[in-house]
Amino acid sequence: MTKTLQSYLSGQFVSGSGRASQLHDPTRGGVVAETSTAGLDLAGALAYARSVGGPAVRELTFAQRGEVLSAMASALHEHRDELLDLARLNGGNCRSDAKFDIDGATGTLAFYGKLGQSLGDRTFLADGDSVQLARNPRYIGQHIRVPRHGVAVHINAFNFPAWGFGEKAAVALLAGMPVLCKPATSTALVTARMFEILVAADVAPAGTLSLLCGSAGDLLDHLGPQDALAFTGSSDTGAMIRGRDNLVRLGVPVNVEADSLNSAVLGPDVDDDSDTFDMFVREVARDMVQKSGQKCTAVRRVYVPRDSLESAREALIAEVQRSAVGDPALKQVRVGPVATAQQLRDVRAGIDKLAGTYRLVMGDGSPGKLEGEGLENGYFVGPTLLEADGPGPGLAHELEVFGPVQTLIPYDGSAAEAVDSVARGTGSLVSSVYTDDKTFAKDMILGLAPYNGRLHLGGKKVADHSPGPGTVLPQMVHGGPGRAGGGEELGGVRGLSFYMQRTAVQGLNALVERIAGLK
Amino acid sequence: MTKTLQSYLSGQFVSGSGRASQLHDPTRGGVVAETSTAGLDLAGALAYARSVGGPAVRELTFAQRGEVLSAMASALHEHRDELLDLARLNGGNCRSDAKFDIDGATGTLAFYGKLGQSLGDRTFLADGDSVQLARNPRYIGQHIRVPRHGVAVHINAFNFPAWGFGEKAAVALLAGMPVLCKPATSTALVTARMFEILVAADVAPAGTLSLLCGSAGDLLDHLGPQDALAFTGSSDTGAMIRGRDNLVRLGVPVNVEADSLNSAVLGPDVDDDSDTFDMFVREVARDMVQKSGQKCTAVRRVYVPRDSLESAREALIAEVQRSAVGDPALKQVRVGPVATAQQLRDVRAGIDKLAGTYRLVMGDGSPGKLEGEGLENGYFVGPTLLEADGPGPGLAHELEVFGPVQTLIPYDGSAAEAVDSVARGTGSLVSSVYTDDKTFAKDMILGLAPYNGRLHLGGKKVADHSPGPGTVLPQMVHGGPGRAGGGEELGGVRGLSFYMQRTAVQGLNALVERIAGLK
Repeated sequence: MTKTLQSYLSGQFVSGSGRASQLHDPTRGGVVAETSTAGLDLAGALAYARSVGGPAVRELTFAQRGEVLSAMASALHEHRDELLDLARLNGGNCRSDAKFDIDGATGTLAFYGKLGQSLGDRTFLADGDSVQLARNPRYIGQHIRVPRHGVAVHINAFNFPAWGFGEKAAVALLAGMPVLCKPATSTALVTARMFEILVAADVAPAGTLSLLCGSAGDLLDHLGPQDALAFTGSSDTGAMIRGRDNLVRLGVPVNVEADSLNSAVLGPDVDDDSDTFDMFVREVARDMVQKSGQKCTAVRRVYVPRDSLESAREALIAEVQRSAVGDPALKQVRVGPVATAQQLRDVRAGIDKLAGTYRLVMGDGSPGKLEGEGLENGYFVGPTLLEADGPGPGLAHELEVFGPVQTLIPYDGSAAEAVDSVARGTGSLVSSVYTDDKTFAKDMILGLAPYNGRLHLGGKKVADHSPGPGTVLPQMVHGGPGRAGGGEELGGVRGLSFYMQRTAVQGLNALVERIAGLK
Repeated sequence: MTKTLQSYLSGQFVSGSGRASQLHDPTRGGVVAETSTAGLDLAGALAYARSVGGPAVRELTFAQRGEVLSAMASALHEHRDELLDLARLNGGNCRSDAKFDIDGATGTLAFYGKLGQSLGDRTFLADGDSVQLARNPRYIGQHIRVPRHGVAVHINAFNFPAWGFGEKAAVALLAGMPVLCKPATSTALVTARMFEILVAADVAPAGTLSLLCGSAGDLLDHLGPQDALAFTGSSDTGAMIRGRDNLVRLGVPVNVEADSLNSAVLGPDVDDDSDTFDMFVREVARDMVQKSGQKCTAVRRVYVPRDSLESAREALIAEVQRSAVGDPALKQVRVGPVATAQQLRDVRAGIDKLAGTYRLVMGDGSPGKLEGEGLENGYFVGPTLLEADGPGPGLAHELEVFGPVQTLIPYDGSAAEAVDSVARGTGSLVSSVYTDDKTFAKDMILGLAPYNGRLHLGGKKVADHSPGPGTVLPQMVHGGPGRAGGGEELGGVRGLSFYMQRTAVQGLNALVERIAGLK
């Protein structure tokens, strides 16, 4: 039986009419659900969120908004096993990949729940200290941040149907904005179930949570200057959205978090029998196989000093090959299929393009040996490693293949050459450096910083404590310059900025400080 | 003799070939200078700034960059009288208006010079405190801000040829980016002279200051993902620039500071014989006449309680009429012409449109009585006040007339009605509230905050100390949501963010803190 997904708009579960989109099981190819948004009143849904949800969430203190987020996290966590199963069914996730998504969502909601507690009994923020603005000390200035009076519209990517919703919703709700979430249609089964759970648990005020499950239709045509739009997905779609005439004309803030060509760099000081080398191999290999390489933060370019090329190649291949590919329901499987038939075509086409320039040293885009039965129609790609001759310009710095695919790139071991080459990617979400040489570490971090939103520094002393570069932590900013979209999400309280207006207030000291809640 | 202006690109003064644009004397209409950018190598100029100016300014500490800014301020201040004369000649500024622009530029450069001193011997910033990211306290995260590795391109408006250059250049240079300034062609005489002064004084490192004096040509086609573009001007041009395909595609950050329909609101508690009433009248009238109303921050909508309408109207008209209109060279003149023939046409057309909906209660767009001789071909508009029946929807909330033009709007004296009406402008740079009622003040400030970048609170205790809403102070954020462009400039150290990449660095505590300059 095919389940029909519902949207949750204007405080009701609703279904569109007309031709539905189908959601598939990427492991075996069958249809698992369908959904349509045709005929839904999206302008009305936005107006409801603005007029009912907006005042409701703005009236709550940060501590109370935090309680809502904590309650959301708890309600979802109670249904963890069910959600993990749905992530396998519709996303092809093996259990650890499903946990990465589902627990990432509840963890981020819980983190922002606690942050709300720490921000206390206020409804908006003071920003910095007051400043005397005239010779007479009575006339001062003070910045405040207040919630925007619109809807936070979130367009999420197919790879994280739970975390994508959770991380964006947590930040927007804590800032004081109602949320309308539009997950990627192809993997929306998880998000749709999360909304059923949250609505049944009745944890969020009316109008603060809306779901559009399927095509966005004319949603973006109805955004106004107090709304905010956050998008996660491909660089091309991000650019299309950001350039939309009505958003540009009305000054609607748009945050883009786009796929990028993330890098990992092995330092010239690292021997192949060291803990740092093992950490490098472990973390790079994990980024190849985790979520079948479908992470916007995943390492795509792997830099190793020329004289470490052979040992790094061998170690990486051996480590990746420890992960069985196949039916994600099987306990021993670590690599499931990619999420959709389209992804399968794109990934294979991308590998073919890269293979026109670089040597294939592991895999070739075919499924390879699969664990499990009845997988003939699944969307499987075996982990694939290519190798470049050097760090110069080329396709490895331009084409992101969004699957279990990496390119190994030898360099001369100098920070200058590595930085120059990483910079060819014109902006990344994250890069990593593995070294125990303090000078190399410093040169790399400061050299890479303008081109990256986040930098991860591996070395022997943190080898056992690091979550790796591919894990987005709510404490740290997520996003990156240039190709990565130029946006920022999370980063603790930093993330709230996008959903708030910073306003400079000037006037009588005592009055301004009282209004700003400082006295 | 017509002066030919030069651009300053790739470390040289250069002139374009081909047909030149003409700059006029708005007081008498004659040509005072001409300039062309045809044939200039703009891609080369950007590359020079990136490769020569970028490393030079990034290598300086904040304190050293601050010294550069202080030296720029001093060099310009030495030529103050000459610059004031040029502002009159090419901008039609009376002396106080010219000072507002020229002293605003040197003052802002000096302010950021001092801020640089206070930021000390660092070359980049730490952002917030470090956070423990794993169970083991060794693995931490720390955010840093580093200068972007491109050029800060500044497209400025015709009304502030000095301040526009100074305020943007101060912030970008202090952040660590080289600057390419493109002033509005029509009033570029002042900016061009400023560059001659600065180059002769040799105060800034090679490649850190460039000037494009005239049409932008293909400048924006050559911007890359590490560049940053800040624009001040009309909402329409701002939207056109922000939506440019190459900027959107490459993720070039764009800051827009656009004209907006700023408001001043008189509180219901204010008697017409009070200091607060006088302050309201004085500041609103000043915004009508200062720079002949050509300030992006100028009050356009003047809200008064219905029962104060007559006294406010009378007092405003009387106050405005104390300012003589005419030849800005004359000591007694307070209102010069608007800046260009095109502005004159636009302002008159705008007044005609407003007069189709609202009553003219002072002026009608004609020059009126002028002080001085030989002004027949000058671009004069007499101060013009219109009056609406009420605060409802209408042209006053949609059409900005960029001259000495305001609309008086009666309202019921409630904060709710005033906020609703101001919000119809869909985003402003600044609004003002004049009241001594603490509750009204609070309701207005918090109600208006989402719709304004800055709020000015007038009252009897600050009546003698306030610079008024129209003065942009470097300590406070300048910009506004929605129609005002959604950007932010200045605000002390806040302004640096636009020119810097915020990067999250994760790794071993001691090493990360050392790299971030915290140990």
